[in-house]
Amino acid sequence: MSAGSVRPTIAFAMGDAAGVGSELMAHMLNDAEVMDAARYIVIGDRRILDRGAKAAGVPVDLPTISADAPIPDGESGAVFVDLGHLDPADAPFGQLGLASGRFAVENFRTALLFAKSGGADAVAFTPFNKAAMRLAHPGYEDEIGFTADVIGFNGVAKEFNILEGLWNARVTSHVPLKDVASLLTQEEIVGNLHLTADALRASGLATPRIAVAGLNPHAGDGGNFGREEIDVIGPAVATAKAEGVVCDGPFPADTVFVRARRGDFDAVLTMYHDQGQIAMKLIGFDRGVTLMGGFPFPICTPAHGTAFDIAGTGRANTGAVRAALLLAARMGAKAAARRASVSRPSLSVSDVRSARAA
Amino acid sequence: MSAGSVRPTIAFAMGDAAGVGSELMAHMLNDAEVMDAARYIVIGDRRILDRGAKAAGVPVDLPTISADAPIPDGESGAVFVDLGHLDPADAPFGQLGLASGRFAVENFRTALLFAKSGGADAVAFTPFNKAAMRLAHPGYEDEIGFTADVIGFNGVAKEFNILEGLWNARVTSHVPLKDVASLLTQEEIVGNLHLTADALRASGLATPRIAVAGLNPHAGDGGNFGREEIDVIGPAVATAKAEGVVCDGPFPADTVFVRARRGDFDAVLTMYHDQGQIAMKLIGFDRGVTLMGGFPFPICTPAHGTAFDIAGTGRANTGAVRAALLLAARMGAKAAARRASVSRPSLSVSDVRSARAA
Repeated sequence: MSAGSVRPTIAFAMGDAAGVGSELMAHMLNDAEVMDAARYIVIGDRRILDRGAKAAGVPVDLPTISADAPIPDGESGAVFVDLGHLDPADAPFGQLGLASGRFAVENFRTALLFAKSGGADAVAFTPFNKAAMRLAHPGYEDEIGFTADVIGFNGVAKEFNILEGLWNARVTSHVPLKDVASLLTQEEIVGNLHLTADALRASGLATPRIAVAGLNPHAGDGGNFGREEIDVIGPAVATAKAEGVVCDGPFPADTVFVRARRGDFDAVLTMYHDQGQIAMKLIGFDRGVTLMGGFPFPICTPAHGTAFDIAGTGRANTGAVRAALLLAARMGAKAAARRASVSRPSLSVSDVRSARAA
Repeated sequence: MSAGSVRPTIAFAMGDAAGVGSELMAHMLNDAEVMDAARYIVIGDRRILDRGAKAAGVPVDLPTISADAPIPDGESGAVFVDLGHLDPADAPFGQLGLASGRFAVENFRTALLFAKSGGADAVAFTPFNKAAMRLAHPGYEDEIGFTADVIGFNGVAKEFNILEGLWNARVTSHVPLKDVASLLTQEEIVGNLHLTADALRASGLATPRIAVAGLNPHAGDGGNFGREEIDVIGPAVATAKAEGVVCDGPFPADTVFVRARRGDFDAVLTMYHDQGQIAMKLIGFDRGVTLMGGFPFPICTPAHGTAFDIAGTGRANTGAVRAALLLAARMGAKAAARRASVSRPSLSVSDVRSARAA
């Protein structure tokens, strides 16, 4: 913790119980830098965490309270809030299952409500399995939509993919490729540029440099292979620049990531899903972090999945979850500093859960 | 040269005179493995080659004949056909220029006609500068269209990008992204799969394994994000399989190159330009080879450009041009073996050039 900065609180939800999440979490609770960066309200079932710690071969030594107990005040390390809702016997390692999905959904929902109530400055979670989430919560599409529903958020939130200082956001995402061109508007692109610049600044970068990808081959080659660069993307970049965003483009998509990887830019705004995902996955995004930005608080998770094939073996790599927690801490510290004078409510997890039901 | 194989002849055209081509060529003429793999009919201006050799700091010691002289028979190394058409003073290193473009166009045209006439089994060339090619030959779009015009070819030819054993071909290329979906047909995809399998086999791979990329995010996610995988690409893969092509897919575009890079596939057939180019350029395609396949003879060139910024310094990396010549030799040897019993015509370069004019 650097002198003068405010220590943030992170609501840290256990993800899918059958995956590598619990062993990763056990490792993080023993990681000095991670523990020093924030205070953690860990939400899940203590039996699942203990099983993960055993798989990881590390001790877990943190106070455990019930959902009804107020979160203790103070600056000390981590507190475990035991919802007592999943017997490990019902969630075998490596098996996709409804119980493990329900567990993850409920932990995540609780963490979101806790942060919404002001009890935490950021949310983090260990990996979900999307199929299990859908079993547990029919209609579950992704974390963005679920979060907006849970906290009643009507603004614009976006997924950012982050790998070793390189950020990627996209204007369109899970839509058919044939619809991408018609979904691009100047307004949408300008909004995405502001959102990206805001998220990068919230992570600690004073003047983020954003590259904007074109849509067409060779960024349209002066209009020969499509006009969106001339008619939509170029004007949007000019508008965002005039509004103070440090950005440039549109650049040909097949070289912009080569340049970004070597450090020419902090972020690339892409026009469609695979434009960024092809690049990020090749560069090694399974070691990266996914951030949901634009909500009242940042939400971070490792980019990799539940890794059912190695769950319980203690072999899971901790690099991505570590990066996710450190990013949540960095962004949470900025939020905490903004409201350092406001007293934090003394809440129990049950308080925030029942407040929602009311 | 391995025992029993036929030594091919390659028509090797000098590319843009202002770029790194002449120094790369000088290095190749001193490379034992490259020289052993084929016989080379080098086409250009001897003064330009000598300047390149000086920049490269290597000698060039090969017989030089005029355009009117018949190419000497025999198996020995390389022969230089001096068209005497460019004074180095008119083509300063590193400067885009009409004269350097005209030089490249004429050398390439001559090499193509020479191969068409039966004088060579393959064509190779050092890098072109597209802007210079357009100055010299208005309407010049790319090597595929130019070659088809010069040799009067009406079939289907495609560009393949090849990097250390990983091939990429694409169904659509220089078209607006919004038009890609409507251009995909089963017939087109099946044709591309055969062309790709044929080219890989012609390069020496007995049973090439081809991965087919989907079009939409997550390859359409079962129809949620687009139906082309279900309606077009999947059926095309099934048809090609039934016709004997070893292929599989459609796979999500954002993981197929991760798998291909680790060796799961020999080639990836992509649906549009950037899908493959984003991946190949990140993997390091400037060290790779571009092959024009589908013509009566293979045409190979290094994937990188003229590198005007370092032209004449002797610093250009020879890896890509070396790989291009060795691929041309491998593919040319198979073609040469097929017609080993047919006597090769004893032609001069002027013969083939005038035959075209006639």
